[in-house]
Amino acid sequence: MSLSIHRGLNPTDREPLEALIRATGFFNPEEIDVALELVDDRLANGDASHYRFLVGELEAQVAGYACWGPIPGTVAAADLYWIVVHPDFQGQGAGAALLRAAEEWMAAAGRTRVYVETSTRPQYLPTRAFYAACGYEIVSELVDFYAPGDGKATFLKVL
Amino acid sequence: MSLSIHRGLNPTDREPLEALIRATGFFNPEEIDVALELVDDRLANGDASHYRFLVGELEAQVAGYACWGPIPGTVAAADLYWIVVHPDFQGQGAGAALLRAAEEWMAAAGRTRVYVETSTRPQYLPTRAFYAACGYEIVSELVDFYAPGDGKATFLKVL
Repeated sequence: MSLSIHRGLNPTDREPLEALIRATGFFNPEEIDVALELVDDRLANGDASHYRFLVGELEAQVAGYACWGPIPGTVAAADLYWIVVHPDFQGQGAGAALLRAAEEWMAAAGRTRVYVETSTRPQYLPTRAFYAACGYEIVSELVDFYAPGDGKATFLKVL
Repeated sequence: MSLSIHRGLNPTDREPLEALIRATGFFNPEEIDVALELVDDRLANGDASHYRFLVGELEAQVAGYACWGPIPGTVAAADLYWIVVHPDFQGQGAGAALLRAAEEWMAAAGRTRVYVETSTRPQYLPTRAFYAACGYEIVSELVDFYAPGDGKATFLKVL
């Protein structure tokens, strides 16, 4: 697999990004809205947006994307908001490649403490396993944060 | 002491709020900017703003304020962003009165899991002691979050 990853976001990316977010079947309507809000914020505000995007293409199709941003009020912390890979391209290392590319960008920007928040629900077990495999460690767990029985796990990787 | 607390924010509150934030001598320029951004967001967007304010008056002067908001994507969680009391009125229970009033509002809005984030620096020892005295418990501590040696402690109170 040879994923072509570029930084930034073009207006023409919006449609395939929305399609791949929906294609995963992973996110509820509220989560889809939030994901698209970040996309639209970036498209509207360009470099003034808080959100940094990386888009991965494979066989001339948008295969996945990552989104991160520096955490305001911190010297070196960054939030990794989303990594999404189209189901057609999952299991081929696209997520890990997007994560590595995002980490390179964060490190170059002086953002060497990377935080990722995920749900503690069983649905997110593969997500948590993915981050653990990529060198992330759980540094906090807030029980019942999202909803009863649905806590928030925060992962950290120091680059 | 008889603090008069009202919900909401009037354009005429901005000047005394900025004055009291500065008068504390507690916040750095970046923190002052963030505090005022929330004030301006509320004044610009009214009830459509994410931020809920409570202003406390004493002797016909603005003595302090609190700011909170529901946490998006959660069923019942709220962030308590700021409680600030003017130095002239500190030590008289104004902070605790503002916190109680905010908690009543949060509970009425179905936001019964109240999170507060503070720095682990020594400067914030009185802040942390205040929340502990008001029934908050530390549920997470992220070392070096804000800067080397400056971690983030998250408190929780379930209403």
